[in-house]
Amino acid sequence: KKEKEIFLPAGKIDGHKIKEIQTKQEMPQQEMLWKKSFFKDLRVIGQLHNTYILCESGEGLILIDQHAAHERILFEQIKNNYISKNSKKRSQNLLLPETVDFGYREAGILEGLIPGLEELGMKVEPFGGNTFVIKSVPAIFADRETAPLLIEIVEKMAEIGFSPGIEFAASAADHCLILMACHGAIRANQHLSDKEITALLDQLDQCDIPSSCPHGRPTWIKWPIKFFEKSFKRVV
Amino acid sequence: KKEKEIFLPAGKIDGHKIKEIQTKQEMPQQEMLWKKSFFKDLRVIGQLHNTYILCESGEGLILIDQHAAHERILFEQIKNNYISKNSKKRSQNLLLPETVDFGYREAGILEGLIPGLEELGMKVEPFGGNTFVIKSVPAIFADRETAPLLIEIVEKMAEIGFSPGIEFAASAADHCLILMACHGAIRANQHLSDKEITALLDQLDQCDIPSSCPHGRPTWIKWPIKFFEKSFKRVV
Repeated sequence: KKEKEIFLPAGKIDGHKIKEIQTKQEMPQQEMLWKKSFFKDLRVIGQLHNTYILCESGEGLILIDQHAAHERILFEQIKNNYISKNSKKRSQNLLLPETVDFGYREAGILEGLIPGLEELGMKVEPFGGNTFVIKSVPAIFADRETAPLLIEIVEKMAEIGFSPGIEFAASAADHCLILMACHGAIRANQHLSDKEITALLDQLDQCDIPSSCPHGRPTWIKWPIKFFEKSFKRVV
Repeated sequence: KKEKEIFLPAGKIDGHKIKEIQTKQEMPQQEMLWKKSFFKDLRVIGQLHNTYILCESGEGLILIDQHAAHERILFEQIKNNYISKNSKKRSQNLLLPETVDFGYREAGILEGLIPGLEELGMKVEPFGGNTFVIKSVPAIFADRETAPLLIEIVEKMAEIGFSPGIEFAASAADHCLILMACHGAIRANQHLSDKEITALLDQLDQCDIPSSCPHGRPTWIKWPIKFFEKSFKRVV
């Protein structure tokens, strides 16, 4: 069922006319399209509200949610890193290691998380008491504050019931990956240069599942030109 | 009823969610907005399919149908010209007058139309037999072929039952004005420079009824940002 959702044509909105046009029959075609260079071949028109990238395809208007798209890209990049055997490529040492203080219970959880996090490219060491130091992070975080990410990871692990002694399972890793992708991704309300937009589209083409972010939100939506023609009463 | 239609918020589409948002209560506000500098204040994002101009307002995405918008502009320009007392401003002599041949019946109709057309800025003279010569046209046609326009005007007049001896009434003039605006307006599938887009928006602000073309089609449609937020599941 999950795969079906992923490959559903983006832009399914309840009560919206697009629904009729983007039927299941179109799915194989859409799937094929983005295996090639779907995003790279779009003509970029510009940014809307510094949040959505507007592009033109032969068929109409393509809107891309820049945060969701970048989240997807980072998620797959960190995940591939995680799966890869080459541990050297995984992370980057911080010039200024960050120290973070936790509560007693959280410190215990983090202690148990350390080996798992290292596999994900985030090297954390105990610093005495309930304080920890972040030594290295996946390369995408090299210029970002990483303490808020570590805090959120520990909170999430507490929430899903992870505790020391329990194996760092794939589902726990996925939660961490999603949080990493979310913290690393460009935000909404952020201006992108033409170069940055092009790079984003290039990277989206390289994704296995470019049509949704790791939370399951769509990364792009197509409005067929027919939709505008009807709205403007160019056609009946 | 006609005025009501004109001031309806653009973008009313059956079955579309916009309908809920753009209620009648918003009307006075929208009306007020375009009395000022609604279009000039939009940030232009770019052109879609060389047919629609995409702009950003604080509230969302504004799509402008370039042909419909230009038709509205030209319609009001020629109409104001027509109403104005200053006959010198009305038209421009053609460097190379165009001759046009008609059938017997059409030639008779055109003969009767000549005084009315001159009021509209289009000077036509008999050239012998069923041939006529176009001597001058409203300034907007200075660099366009005008024979197809004259042919279409005569066809339209035949269709609505105009015949020599009948007074060239306001409704006949309106039909001619609409045809002139349609022939003079930029087409869909025409690339516009940034300068041309800016000029179009400026002129649209100066229109009395900028929200619909003389045929009654909308010139612009607003998609509130909320619509995109829902589509991308940013909000529920």
